[in-house]
Amino acid sequence: MDIVQFIAAKRDGQEHTSDAIADFIRGYVQGSVADYQASAWLMAAYLKGLSPRETLALTETLTHSGRTYALGHFGAHSVDKHSTGGVGDKTSLVVVPLCASLGATVPKMSGRGLGFTGGTLDKLESIPGLRTRLPAEEFEGIVQQYGAAICAQTPDLVPADGKLYALRDVTATVDSIPLIAASVMSKKLAMGCPAIVLDVKVGSGAFMPCLDQARALAQMMIALGSSAGRHMVALLSAMDQPLGEAVGNALEVREAWQVLNGAGPLDFRQHCQRVAAEMLVAAGLFADADSAIDACERALSDGSAAERFLQIVSAQGGQVEALTQDRLPGASVIHEVHSPRAGYVTSLEARAIGRAVMALGAGRVRKEDTVDPAVGVVLHAKVGSPVERGQTLALVHARDAASALAAGQAVAAAYTFGESQPETPPLIYEVLRG
Amino acid sequence: MDIVQFIAAKRDGQEHTSDAIADFIRGYVQGSVADYQASAWLMAAYLKGLSPRETLALTETLTHSGRTYALGHFGAHSVDKHSTGGVGDKTSLVVVPLCASLGATVPKMSGRGLGFTGGTLDKLESIPGLRTRLPAEEFEGIVQQYGAAICAQTPDLVPADGKLYALRDVTATVDSIPLIAASVMSKKLAMGCPAIVLDVKVGSGAFMPCLDQARALAQMMIALGSSAGRHMVALLSAMDQPLGEAVGNALEVREAWQVLNGAGPLDFRQHCQRVAAEMLVAAGLFADADSAIDACERALSDGSAAERFLQIVSAQGGQVEALTQDRLPGASVIHEVHSPRAGYVTSLEARAIGRAVMALGAGRVRKEDTVDPAVGVVLHAKVGSPVERGQTLALVHARDAASALAAGQAVAAAYTFGESQPETPPLIYEVLRG
Repeated sequence: MDIVQFIAAKRDGQEHTSDAIADFIRGYVQGSVADYQASAWLMAAYLKGLSPRETLALTETLTHSGRTYALGHFGAHSVDKHSTGGVGDKTSLVVVPLCASLGATVPKMSGRGLGFTGGTLDKLESIPGLRTRLPAEEFEGIVQQYGAAICAQTPDLVPADGKLYALRDVTATVDSIPLIAASVMSKKLAMGCPAIVLDVKVGSGAFMPCLDQARALAQMMIALGSSAGRHMVALLSAMDQPLGEAVGNALEVREAWQVLNGAGPLDFRQHCQRVAAEMLVAAGLFADADSAIDACERALSDGSAAERFLQIVSAQGGQVEALTQDRLPGASVIHEVHSPRAGYVTSLEARAIGRAVMALGAGRVRKEDTVDPAVGVVLHAKVGSPVERGQTLALVHARDAASALAAGQAVAAAYTFGESQPETPPLIYEVLRG
Repeated sequence: MDIVQFIAAKRDGQEHTSDAIADFIRGYVQGSVADYQASAWLMAAYLKGLSPRETLALTETLTHSGRTYALGHFGAHSVDKHSTGGVGDKTSLVVVPLCASLGATVPKMSGRGLGFTGGTLDKLESIPGLRTRLPAEEFEGIVQQYGAAICAQTPDLVPADGKLYALRDVTATVDSIPLIAASVMSKKLAMGCPAIVLDVKVGSGAFMPCLDQARALAQMMIALGSSAGRHMVALLSAMDQPLGEAVGNALEVREAWQVLNGAGPLDFRQHCQRVAAEMLVAAGLFADADSAIDACERALSDGSAAERFLQIVSAQGGQVEALTQDRLPGASVIHEVHSPRAGYVTSLEARAIGRAVMALGAGRVRKEDTVDPAVGVVLHAKVGSPVERGQTLALVHARDAASALAAGQAVAAAYTFGESQPETPPLIYEVLRG
């Protein structure tokens, strides 16, 4: 292929053929297309867009750049789930065992978290001993035995996306709707589940700040999944304030464990039930969302979801006592953030909380950074909460007093207050189906 | 600097500060900014544009990335000249010695030719023995003695532009007006001449196919030069058909030699006189273009321009007998291209001729390619020429019969014919001054 001509075509707003896109990606993986050429193309694609046909071709080429599971490999009731990422989003930790306890098969592979939203794998690894880098055979074995496992994407899965994503990350070409859609869906399609539920986050704490963009991304991913014969559902869910109360690895695992035992913050519990219900219906296990939600409530209150989580944790090498006896890693400094005034919380900036928790050491700026499992924030007041002057708004869990103080100031600044109680924001704006 | 944020700013159409542009270029030259980040920025700059302020900052940073000559280093009457490149454009070979013979100082450094337009250095090197890679001291010595020299840009001159241009060349980001303007003007400003004459080619055989674009490029370069206190002139000249009759290295040198001796094709001779006259007026040696053109005509007919050329060629190691005794490299095959019909030549595609001559081996696709000095085309019929069926339109000078035949077909296809004589196209559309 003439790579300069290929870049020029996208630069000039032309549509590539599917073959040209496949040649480009193969050339990039094999090294005949240089990084600097791929990044020039990515910027042109970012600014000029990709047509649905181009996005489909890109997705298919990425999907087939490595090992793929055949459609239905994990069974007729297998269902995959993906969240575009948000602050305090520990939903997978609940819905994966919950759905497995109700008969679904959920072979969940996750990428590493980057940026202010954190990653499922980092959260899970705060359970001492738990391994997320599982060989494919071990992963499949656990899925077969317990109906679910959560592991790191194996290196042979969609390797082209890994290479391309790393390049996007350092060239300001991440948040392009077709590029995100192709990246996410190539990984989902490679897993071979007949049903896929997408949790597309909308708001200041998500990649997509506004509903229109999130809807466009969801529709594109639905179209890509439908083209490949998958049953697709996308929830557009709120991410203006953090989900639940806990933000930070071990703190989020503790909160997920609470929800798995029928407790925990109401917003997060309801969100998990909605997502799990969509997964169960899509997997063909329930006729409608209402009956699935009823089943979820039972599984959360009768201990069956919690038990399934312990089985999966144990199978992946994790110490279940960390959960059952509350022995997750703890921070040495706990610092209270007080309300500067009386009134109502009118907003709570998810992105600011995410950044504060990152600064505490809970997240990664670069891939090679290590995360601190213990640090984070627990929010005692959220949007709509009435507060008194001096009341505790949040607890900062930190390594030392200095970082606690800095995070405390950032958390306090993330709150705004008003005289009257605002309406409770919706958890889920829309559900789209393909 | 945060390079990802810098790229994102241009991607989102924001204007960079001058400091940010300087940091970016310095980081790129030093290696802290990767090629793949620079190319993503180049594509964003290509598509979102650069403001005049940004273009000025880029130009200044490039200029000062290496050695610079102080303003007036080569004297008060020193003048630089640049052509944006066209098929058959051997103007520098005539105007540099011509202006030097009339009292101007012309320290001419050129880049290598790439693409279908050829380069001055390659043409000059068809004179046996002639060296174009001169050390700075030798170059300055020849300029001091003879008022002019033509050499390759020394590696310490604007090194950042060299690195950036090489990247643009392989990432489809060459033909952006602000990027071209910054690249050209950084090199001209580094030479320190108080007067600069730009020959901006317009037409199918040039980088700028239409007058509006060429004017925009010329105006931007004039503004950049004026900001740096230079006397600026830009000619917008026609490049729909090749300039003169000869296209190919030695063939063009022979044609330049003819013009230096008061002969040669009329269009090329007139073009040289117009360019030289602007240079001489800008250098402060003549009060107006008319008197300068009169002086040029004398210098071309009395042998003084030709003699000055021989002095410079000799100083650079070239064998003057190659010119005086017509011993330039010759091709082994000379193939006639015949007219398929009677009528008038109505157009003669410069780009097609350029490509045909490239295919004969006269140009470079890649920097490391070597050029064949002997091959090329001599056009016996140009736009407006009356032709008989079977008359010789052009002579192809080739290495072998097969390449001669292929080039002959391409040359024939570059001609179109009509029943009535078209108007003679103008040589120069506009002259802009700063």
